[in-house]
Amino acid sequence: MGKERFVDIIHKKRLGQPLTGSEIRQMIADYVAGEIPDYQMSAMLMAICFQGMNDEELTTLTLAMRDSGDVVDLSPIEGIKVDKHSTGGVGDKTTLIVGPVVAACGVPVAKMSGRGLGFTGGTLDKLESIPGFRVGLTGEEFFRAVKDNGISVIGQTGNLAPADKLLYALRDVTSTVDSIPLIAASIMSKKLAAGSDKIVLDVTTGSGAFIKDIEGSKELARRMTAIGKGAGKETVAVLTSMEEPLGEAVGNNLEVIEAVKVLQGGGPEDVKEVCLALAGMMLSLGYGDGQSLSYEEGRQMAEKALVSGQAYEKFKAMVQTQGGDVNFIENPDKFAKAAFSDTLTAWEDGYITSMNTEGIGVAAGLLGAGRETKESEIDFSAGIQMKKKIGDAVKKGDVLAVCHAGTEEKLQQGLTYLRDCILFSSKKLEPLKLVVDIVR
Amino acid sequence: MGKERFVDIIHKKRLGQPLTGSEIRQMIADYVAGEIPDYQMSAMLMAICFQGMNDEELTTLTLAMRDSGDVVDLSPIEGIKVDKHSTGGVGDKTTLIVGPVVAACGVPVAKMSGRGLGFTGGTLDKLESIPGFRVGLTGEEFFRAVKDNGISVIGQTGNLAPADKLLYALRDVTSTVDSIPLIAASIMSKKLAAGSDKIVLDVTTGSGAFIKDIEGSKELARRMTAIGKGAGKETVAVLTSMEEPLGEAVGNNLEVIEAVKVLQGGGPEDVKEVCLALAGMMLSLGYGDGQSLSYEEGRQMAEKALVSGQAYEKFKAMVQTQGGDVNFIENPDKFAKAAFSDTLTAWEDGYITSMNTEGIGVAAGLLGAGRETKESEIDFSAGIQMKKKIGDAVKKGDVLAVCHAGTEEKLQQGLTYLRDCILFSSKKLEPLKLVVDIVR
Repeated sequence: MGKERFVDIIHKKRLGQPLTGSEIRQMIADYVAGEIPDYQMSAMLMAICFQGMNDEELTTLTLAMRDSGDVVDLSPIEGIKVDKHSTGGVGDKTTLIVGPVVAACGVPVAKMSGRGLGFTGGTLDKLESIPGFRVGLTGEEFFRAVKDNGISVIGQTGNLAPADKLLYALRDVTSTVDSIPLIAASIMSKKLAAGSDKIVLDVTTGSGAFIKDIEGSKELARRMTAIGKGAGKETVAVLTSMEEPLGEAVGNNLEVIEAVKVLQGGGPEDVKEVCLALAGMMLSLGYGDGQSLSYEEGRQMAEKALVSGQAYEKFKAMVQTQGGDVNFIENPDKFAKAAFSDTLTAWEDGYITSMNTEGIGVAAGLLGAGRETKESEIDFSAGIQMKKKIGDAVKKGDVLAVCHAGTEEKLQQGLTYLRDCILFSSKKLEPLKLVVDIVR
Repeated sequence: MGKERFVDIIHKKRLGQPLTGSEIRQMIADYVAGEIPDYQMSAMLMAICFQGMNDEELTTLTLAMRDSGDVVDLSPIEGIKVDKHSTGGVGDKTTLIVGPVVAACGVPVAKMSGRGLGFTGGTLDKLESIPGFRVGLTGEEFFRAVKDNGISVIGQTGNLAPADKLLYALRDVTSTVDSIPLIAASIMSKKLAAGSDKIVLDVTTGSGAFIKDIEGSKELARRMTAIGKGAGKETVAVLTSMEEPLGEAVGNNLEVIEAVKVLQGGGPEDVKEVCLALAGMMLSLGYGDGQSLSYEEGRQMAEKALVSGQAYEKFKAMVQTQGGDVNFIENPDKFAKAAFSDTLTAWEDGYITSMNTEGIGVAAGLLGAGRETKESEIDFSAGIQMKKKIGDAVKKGDVLAVCHAGTEEKLQQGLTYLRDCILFSSKKLEPLKLVVDIVR
């Protein structure tokens, strides 16, 4: 396809006409091959931001992006492999709990996770805060770990969806990131390349989510499940609230410690509820023949695995197998603690009415828990413990949060930023609904 | 301005927010300096296609584009300099007539014209079909010619609006050409750089115009006159019909011959009418103090200059001064004739109801009258003589047009293409209104 051809395809999209399958496939193949210049692709991406793509176009685009690189073959692992993906949040430690719960129920968890960037944390960073934990297993080690324990969580291997990497880098500098179809294609191309049989999407919504309004989040969920269907892989989206951080802990080893508490039968109720919803959905899709368990039955099965301590044992087995020091899991006091800590206290009486949750993620980053660039080093013990939830009554002087950092300067930066993220009023709000909707 | 800044400005435009003057000026300065990459500018251009620009933004953009290069200084020439620009058409030989008419009335014509590309012809090519005619005068020769004769028409000198050249090249390959504000900025940046005091725009509309619908053409006229006003230069747009070629002749020396006929008091009525409208408007803006002549009075003055033969004398003086052989003007039979000619005859009885005028321009190009690329050579004697107008009654076998080409192959290609551009029906249409509207 020469430049002359592609300009006509841009024009079609600009006019709002759907592109054909071969046009879309050729576009991705030529772009990856360097035969379509960035200046044409960015014009196309902007046209897509305005004109959108229908489900057929979007599925074709996503599959073309998936097929631009390796597609993982998980067939050596018996059973139905169900992947889980979150669209991002603050204090989101669900993978650390959901994975062991699902594995404890006999559904294999062979998962590739990502690192944190910007205001959201990453599962790999959290796992690496456990001394010795290796996320870089070989393929052979990975398959053996899943066979032996039913679970392994590692970093991405292979060259998955390189078209997405190229497109994302271009979108980032051309203000074409926040397009729902482009977000859906980006996420699903990577998920489809990761080789699972079915997919559960945790689509977050609210001030700490990438898409903050409920309608937009539902649309994203609808577009992604349609792509899954179009690709022949059952995909269900669980919409969960990210109007405030999930649980108390925001920061790497702080979140591991909180996840361990939940796995031991304690921990914050909201973390438990979201984890049981996600695990329940994964079990209903993956247990046995993948047809016989309802969502509600899956949820009950997940709860049993949690209460019985089986999930906790699975987690410890995974840590052990991947080289982590299980003593830290059994005695979380062993985890490194930040050199500097201080509290944020309420400056007036009232009720907490809202939080800028993305801002809280930024504050955790300022404390040292996140990365500014891909090359930044993470301080595993830095972060925030939120002591109040939206709707809580607060008296002046009550502790709202405890901040932890490696230096006094970072501590003050984080505290100052965090203060502006919490809003009070004299009116009590109803507690938030955590599982907002389910989109199939 | 680094890339991070500019992505935020793209985002503003994507959201439909107006850009500030400094944002627009910085954008053009940085783009011309190579500090904004093409892939960001093309995303911005596509966002502008969807979100538009208000009059203030558009004037700022146009002035920034004008100021990216040289601005011609016509102040050595006494009197009010009025430029004329056509947005493009087929058979448009108006400059050859309007220029001498206006100059004959004492208003100086110091004009830079362009070459043909695509389906529209260019004044420079037409003038160069007169043996010896030089369009490449030095600045000194140009000013002297205007001083001595009151008229000179030359090719562009200096580096006018280089930002427009860069942007146009990018728009051409990213499907961002047909945006009314971007077209308006492109035209007006060059016109404002050409140094005249006032501007008359011939905004064509219909099947042979760049913008084919009347509403779009009016909008383009409105945007350009607003830019002129914003730049402090009185600008008036005359909307003229291009639903069929202007006059009979389409092709370089054919059009010169037709223009000479009009200057001698004959020629097609439609050419005369459009030329008198444009010349009348230029005179009303430029005669004397530029305030004392109405459009209607200007038109009457133009008609006198035509009927009296004074305009014809001005044309000959211009040809002579710029090195052209005046014998050809006085004896148009001397002009080179194409080696091959043939007629297109009517294949049924009826009335001509419409013409694909752009297609007729393409047919003339196939005959050899146009350029496919900037490097192509033009055959000055190739082209079409249209023998019927929309609304004319036609009997089977009547001559619709005569085609002229340098080879039999080109002749047949042009004839075949032309045939599909003329539509018949049994219903007679009213003749077209030539001057559709005036936008100030």
